[in-house]
Amino acid sequence: MKSRTLISDLPSKMGETVTIAGWLHRLRDMKNFGFAIIRDRSGLVQAVLSPEQTEQLRGMQVETVLKLSGKVVKKQSKDKDANEVEVQVESMEILSPVLDTPPVEINNRDLDVNLDTLLDNRVVTLRHPKQRAIFRVQAALVRGYRSYMERQGFTEIFFPVLGGAASEGGAEFFTLDYYGREATLSQSAQLHKQITMGVYEGVYGLSYSFRAEKFGTSRHLTEFNQLEFEMGFVEEMEELMEVEEAVIREMFATVERECATEIELLVVTLPPLGEKFPRLTLKAALAAYRDEGGVDETKEPDLSPAAEKWLSTVWAPKHFGSGFVFVTDWPPSKRPFYAKVDPKDPENTLTFDLIGFGSEITSGGMRINRYDEQVQRLKDKGLNPADFGDYLMMHKYGIPPEGGFGIGLQRLTQNVLQLPNIKEATIFPRDVQRLRP
Amino acid sequence: MKSRTLISDLPSKMGETVTIAGWLHRLRDMKNFGFAIIRDRSGLVQAVLSPEQTEQLRGMQVETVLKLSGKVVKKQSKDKDANEVEVQVESMEILSPVLDTPPVEINNRDLDVNLDTLLDNRVVTLRHPKQRAIFRVQAALVRGYRSYMERQGFTEIFFPVLGGAASEGGAEFFTLDYYGREATLSQSAQLHKQITMGVYEGVYGLSYSFRAEKFGTSRHLTEFNQLEFEMGFVEEMEELMEVEEAVIREMFATVERECATEIELLVVTLPPLGEKFPRLTLKAALAAYRDEGGVDETKEPDLSPAAEKWLSTVWAPKHFGSGFVFVTDWPPSKRPFYAKVDPKDPENTLTFDLIGFGSEITSGGMRINRYDEQVQRLKDKGLNPADFGDYLMMHKYGIPPEGGFGIGLQRLTQNVLQLPNIKEATIFPRDVQRLRP
Repeated sequence: MKSRTLISDLPSKMGETVTIAGWLHRLRDMKNFGFAIIRDRSGLVQAVLSPEQTEQLRGMQVETVLKLSGKVVKKQSKDKDANEVEVQVESMEILSPVLDTPPVEINNRDLDVNLDTLLDNRVVTLRHPKQRAIFRVQAALVRGYRSYMERQGFTEIFFPVLGGAASEGGAEFFTLDYYGREATLSQSAQLHKQITMGVYEGVYGLSYSFRAEKFGTSRHLTEFNQLEFEMGFVEEMEELMEVEEAVIREMFATVERECATEIELLVVTLPPLGEKFPRLTLKAALAAYRDEGGVDETKEPDLSPAAEKWLSTVWAPKHFGSGFVFVTDWPPSKRPFYAKVDPKDPENTLTFDLIGFGSEITSGGMRINRYDEQVQRLKDKGLNPADFGDYLMMHKYGIPPEGGFGIGLQRLTQNVLQLPNIKEATIFPRDVQRLRP
Repeated sequence: MKSRTLISDLPSKMGETVTIAGWLHRLRDMKNFGFAIIRDRSGLVQAVLSPEQTEQLRGMQVETVLKLSGKVVKKQSKDKDANEVEVQVESMEILSPVLDTPPVEINNRDLDVNLDTLLDNRVVTLRHPKQRAIFRVQAALVRGYRSYMERQGFTEIFFPVLGGAASEGGAEFFTLDYYGREATLSQSAQLHKQITMGVYEGVYGLSYSFRAEKFGTSRHLTEFNQLEFEMGFVEEMEELMEVEEAVIREMFATVERECATEIELLVVTLPPLGEKFPRLTLKAALAAYRDEGGVDETKEPDLSPAAEKWLSTVWAPKHFGSGFVFVTDWPPSKRPFYAKVDPKDPENTLTFDLIGFGSEITSGGMRINRYDEQVQRLKDKGLNPADFGDYLMMHKYGIPPEGGFGIGLQRLTQNVLQLPNIKEATIFPRDVQRLRP
C-alpha cells in the first residue's frame, strides 16, 4: 500500500492529509460521532469518525480491518494508549469486516487468559502487543547470533530433519513410515555439524529438534530450535566458551539496540552480563551451592533445576555481576558418546553447560575426533559401532580436534523474558496435546 | 587454535615461522624427502618434509589431519594447485591419523563420480573444494535474502514442522504417530505466514517442506527449504513482485561480492538480471513460446518444463537481458484454495510464478483475505470449511489484503549453479531411497 502512512510516523505529518490502515482496536460510539482506536504494526492512534462513518461500522466488531484517510491534528481527548495526534477521518473503507466478537479480548493492556486459551486462540492472541513483542525479541536474538558468526567467517548449514532409524535406540524419537521403512525426526544436529568439520572448520545454523517426551512440563516442547555451532582445530575447551560468551553478548546487544520498545512493554530487565561469565567445575558449583546456598547436593553427578537457578540468579550475579555461568567438567555418565573424555582423568569429560538466568540453555564441549577412540567409547557406552556407519566414516577419514555447542532458542527466550512457560516463548508450540495452530 | 595461520594468509608471512593445520591432501614421497600438499578451509599449500617427517607419515593416507610448524619460503617446485609459497617443515604432529584409503579420490580437480557415489560418501565428498563451494554460494544467497528483508523492517518467523492431520487430504503428506493420533510434516508455511499478517504485517523466514512424492526425478526432494515471504496491506500484486525482484537482486549481489572464488572455481556464469525482470501473463507466455519458440502449447493451462526453460534461458535473456521472468494470471484450477481470484475475471487468479534460469523457483500472489470469500472458495474446491478451523479463524477476525511468495532454496541453487540434479544443490538430500547421511 504505497500511499499508506504508518501510525508511528503520524506526529511528523501534523496538518497533512494521510492514509492509514490497520485494525479496529477499540470503538467508542458516542451519540453523534465515534472514536475509533486504530492499531497497525507500529502503534495505536485515535481516529475521529463522522456520524456516517460511525454508522458504517455498526455491527462490525473489533479487529475489523480498515483503511482511513484524513487530516492529522493535535489530539483533543486523552487516551493513554494512543499517541499525541489523532486523525479526523474524511473517508473510510472496510478492507476486511469482522462480524463476530473475537474469542479473547486483545485490546486490554494485558491478555488476562490462561495458557490453553492463549495457545488455542494463537491466531488472535499473537496480535496483542505484548505477545508480538516476545517474538520480535526472539528474532533479534537470532539476528545477533548470525551477525557474530558471519563476522568470524563461519558457514551457515541447513540441517536435515528426516533421518534413518535411530542408532541410539531411544524411546524419545518420533518415527514415521517412509516408503515402507522407518524414518525418524532429528533429535540433534550433532552428526551433521561434525561432518562439516571436514569441510568448513567453523559452522553455525538453526536446527529443528524433536523429542517424543512422555510428559509435559513448563520446560518441555516436542519441537524446538537450537542455535548450533561447531568449530575445528580447537586446542582448548576455553576457545569454545569464548565464542559462546562473545555470541551471547552480541545477541543481547542486538536486543538492547533494536528492541528497546519491546523490552519496556514487557517490563523485563535483561540479565546482567558482567565483565566475564564465571567458569567453574561441576564439583565447585555443587560445593558453592552447599556452602553458600545451604543445600548439599554434592553427592549428585548433576545440577538440580534448583541449583541451576541459584547459581545463575543468585551466585553468579552476586560474585560476578553476571546472569550466566559456565559449569564445566561433567562425568562421562552424564554426557553423550561423542563427548571427549579428559586425557588426564577418565572420570571427567571436556564439556560444559551454560546456565543462563534460571536454567541450562546450552550443552557443549570438545568432541572425540580420533576413530579408534570413538569406536572404543561407543562400546563403553554399550552401543554397537556397526550402527554408526556415517558417524564413524567421518572419524575414519580425518576430522580435526573440535567442539561446539547448541543453544536452545525457546529456552533462552523464556529465561531472558522471565516467562513462566516455555510455550509462551514459542510462536507455534507443540507438546503432548498440542499440534495446532 | 590460537597460533594457527590460515593457508591463504601465508604469502604475507614470508620468512616467518608459522603453524598451519589441515588435511593431507596429497603426498609425494621422494627418496630422501617428501612433498605434502596441505589443505585447510582457505586453500592448499605445499609443505616440504624431512626424511624423518616423511617416515612419520608412512602408512598414513590422504585426509590425515596434521599440524605443522615451519618457515614460509618462496616456492621451489611448481604445483599449479598450491600458492606461491611453501613451508619448510620443522615439526609435525598427527592430529587425526587416517589408515584407510578414502572411498572417493577428493584430491583431483574434479570429483569424477556418479550421483549415488557422491551422496553415499557425502561425509568425504563434501570436502572437495567444488562441493564445498556449492554450499558457500547457497549460504550467501540466504544471507542476501535476510539482509534485504531485515532492512525493510520485516520480522523473521520460525515456522513449525509438526502439524495435525491434513485438511486437504493429500497422499503426499508424511504422517506419523503422535501420542496415539496422527500428525503430519508441514508441506507449506502458508497457514503460519498468513496468521502473522494479523501481527507483523511483513514476515519472512526459512521453512522446511516435506513431500511424500511417489517418484524421484532430478527436480524432486522429499525434504527441502523455502525462503518465505508474506506482506499485509498490499493493494496491487505488483508490490509483491517488486519485493521479490529486489530481494533476488540483493541475493545475487551478495554472491558476486562474497563468493567470487567459489563462482570461479565452479566455472559458472551468474544469470543476467537485466534492468527489470519482464512480467507477462500465462497466455502471453504461451503465445511467445508458439510464435518465437515454435512450440504450440496454447491449449494448456500451464507451462511445460520445456516452456519454462525456453522462457527463462532464451526469451527473457534475448528481449530483456534477464534470466528471470514473472509469469502472471494463472487459472484458478492450477492454484491452491487461498489464491485470490481476480475480481474482474473469475477464470483468473492474481498470482505469479517466477521462472529463474531454467525452471520455476517461486509461486506467489495475492491471497483471499475476507472470511466469506474464503469459505466459498473452499467449497468451490470441494473442501470442507469445517476442516479449516485455524485457517478460517484468521479470516474471521480480520486479516488485511495481503500476499507473498516462497522461493525454493535448493531449486534456486541448482538453477544458478547449473547443476544437473537438485540433490547436488542439497547438502544432505532426502529422496525416496535416501535418508542418510
